[in-house]
This record gives sequence, C-alpha cells and structure tokens, in this order.
Amino acid sequence: MYDMNKWQHIFKLDPNKEISDDNLEQICDSGTDAIIVGGTDHVTLDGVLHLLSRIRRYVVPVILEISNLDVITPGFDFYYIPMVMNSKDKKWMMDIHHHAVKTYGDVMDWDNVMVEGYCILNEDAKAFQLTNCTIPDEEGVLAYALMAEKMFRLPIFYIEYSGKLGDPALVKKVKQKLDHTLLFYGGGIHTAEEAKQMKENADVVIVGNSIYENFKQALTTVKAVKGEG
Amino acid sequence: MYDMNKWQHIFKLDPNKEISDDNLEQICDSGTDAIIVGGTDHVTLDGVLHLLSRIRRYVVPVILEISNLDVITPGFDFYYIPMVMNSKDKKWMMDIHHHAVKTYGDVMDWDNVMVEGYCILNEDAKAFQLTNCTIPDEEGVLAYALMAEKMFRLPIFYIEYSGKLGDPALVKKVKQKLDHTLLFYGGGIHTAEEAKQMKENADVVIVGNSIYENFKQALTTVKAVKGEG
Repeated sequence: MYDMNKWQHIFKLDPNKEISDDNLEQICDSGTDAIIVGGTDHVTLDGVLHLLSRIRRYVVPVILEISNLDVITPGFDFYYIPMVMNSKDKKWMMDIHHHAVKTYGDVMDWDNVMVEGYCILNEDAKAFQLTNCTIPDEEGVLAYALMAEKMFRLPIFYIEYSGKLGDPALVKKVKQKLDHTLLFYGGGIHTAEEAKQMKENADVVIVGNSIYENFKQALTTVKAVKGEG
Repeated sequence: MYDMNKWQHIFKLDPNKEISDDNLEQICDSGTDAIIVGGTDHVTLDGVLHLLSRIRRYVVPVILEISNLDVITPGFDFYYIPMVMNSKDKKWMMDIHHHAVKTYGDVMDWDNVMVEGYCILNEDAKAFQLTNCTIPDEEGVLAYALMAEKMFRLPIFYIEYSGKLGDPALVKKVKQKLDHTLLFYGGGIHTAEEAKQMKENADVVIVGNSIYENFKQALTTVKAVKGEG
C-alpha cells in the first residue's frame, strides 16, 4: 500500500503536546510522506487515540512509535518499535519488546510492524537519559549501523539527536554503510536549510519539536526535502 | 554453495575436548550435514585452528560458533553468532557483537555470518549460568521465537537444553510459530530414538556432548534423523 523506500520526510507529533486544528491540517496536507505519533513523556492511550482520530481526517499515512505498552492500539498504518542499540540496558532492546510480543504477538499484523535500530547521540536528550544510553565513538555508531542491517536485518536505522542538530559528516558515513536498511535522521531540524543538509545523507528526515517551536519554519522543511513538485 | 534450509543434522565438536583421528573421520563421513566447532569453556584460537585443520581433510561444511572474540579466524564456511535472548545481560545480545563488528565488520563476508537467536532452557547448563539466563515460561519461549523471526529476521532460532533432553511438546509449539527462521534443537540427545523424536519438530538436530560420552550411539543419530539413504 505504501512504499516506505520512497519516503523522504516525516513529521513526528507528540500526543502530549498541543496542536491546533488548523496547524494539524497544514501538517497533514503539507506533502510530508507520513506522520509518526510518538513521544517520550506522559504518552497515554487517550492522548494517542485523540491525536489519531484527528489525523485520520486526512489521507497521510500514520505510524505509531511504541514508547510504552499502554499505548498500543489498532488503527495505525504502521507500528514502529524502537530498539535502542546504545542503551546500557537490555530492557530497551529486548525486554519490553518481549513483553509486548508475549501479550500481542498472535494478533499482530507483522507486515506493518517495523523495528527501528535507534542510536541516540545527544546526552542531554530525555530519551537518552530515560533509556540509559552511552555515547559511542564514530566507529561504534558505524558498527551499530552494520549490526542493524547485517545481523538484525532491520528496516530502519535511526540516528536521533533529539533537540540538537547532528553531525552531517557522521550521518554521511553511516549512510555509506547501509545498502538496504533505511537511514532515518531526527533532531534539531528547524529550517529548510538544515532539513536539506541532513537529507543529503539520510534517506528520511524527521521533523518533530520544531513544529511546536516555530511552526512556519517547520512547514518549510517538507519542500526543502522533497522539492517543490 | 550450501543450502542450510535442507540441513537436518549437525554434530557439534568442542575444541577443548579430545577426539581421536579415527572417531573424527567417522563423524565427518557420517552423512551429517555440517560440523559446528564451538564450546563454552577454555575455547582458544589454537584449539579452534587445530580442530579446523583436522576437519578440513573431509568435505563436510564447517561452522565456527563464536563464543568469544579471540577465536575468530578465517577458514570456516559459516560463522554463527549466538544472541542469547533469555540472558539478563545486554552483553550476550548486543555488546560482544558490537565489539566484534567494530573490529571485524569491514572485513566480514556477511553472506556467511548468521545470528542464532538462542534460548537456553536448562538452568544447570554452563552456558545458562555463564550468560546469566532466566527460564522463560512457555509463552515467553514462543514470544522469543516470534521476535527472532519477525523482529530480527534471524536465520536460526536455537533451543538449547545443553546436557538435558528437552520437552518435545514445547519444541513442537515453537516450530508452529516459525515460517522462515530455522528451528535448531540441541541438548541431551544420546540415542537414535531421541534424535528422531526431536527431529519430528525441529528443523535441525544438534548432537554434541554425546560424541564424547557414547560415540557409537552418537553416530546412530545421523541415520535416525536423515534416513538410511
């Protein structure tokens, strides 16, 4: 139905943050390839369902990024499961997932479930602290990318700087390691230029926080990444 | 070159244990589909290389199961990397592997590298204790199998009872969960009957310790599994 391999730009909406109907309409009709619903703090099932029902007025594909088991609900086009590769804890890589699969495994439509190999590279980010990450060196990041593709055959490797613009040179080196696994980049993209720069190396650029910080600028990232047409 | 999907029986040889030239010849010419070189205790590069050179006189495919980084060496047909899914430690699932990929990632021939999703189910086994495992309940084992296939797309899910014969009913239920991932069963197989029983549900039966305990019986497991022809 949707070909993720053609995606270039995704907006990430946080169910715990306010967005007006008008702004939501502009996001959904912006030409972005998909909307991810997900966040780190206080994500509730009510919040997720409310946001889903509002996005469903539009034709854009919607993805639930599962940050905790309480928010799993049918109705999304895809389900992304983060596997935090640079966490110190097995919990964020295997245990929560195991619990979820034990509970929901038999009713899951696995064609729509995708594991994201996350590498969180900003130590000030909430997600970094919550999942007890460590910062790998450059060779370490590249090795995680290789593991994501070659060992675990993950559809997505996600470099997350959450709140800070990352190093384009590193993103480029990671991209060179990947043949099949898509490279997602998220974090600190506020302007069209920043989006364009990151898109030069990542397959898909994710714009999240800036929606809530400078809405008009955030909207310009779509055309910057996907072109005018 | 080799089609692992057709394999039914594998002998596992421990570089830390003695085997005579005559017995080794009988193992290699037994009709088994492959030999895994691997063990838990005191596996050294010298031991691995010595065993490899002795097996290489025969045509049977040889696999190195990488239990520690010191023993990685070229010359094997395949490299199996255990990922211990029911370990409490991230170490046995990600960290050792990350270190290996950082060191050897760029020279690896990934077509010959396969991750085994291990589930170790005998708490008295050395491997269980070494890797700090916990025993999952039945639903937990089935969930690990689903994760191996659906989340990590692993080529192999390995139920390891190491030293004790496992529960055939559980092996059967695991097999029913798997469409693509091969089910390997190892542990406690001494007789032709035991091998046959486990092969009814597992794709591949691995015979290890009994080679060193009752050699003649161990040899009979090949025909029991693969038939006379």
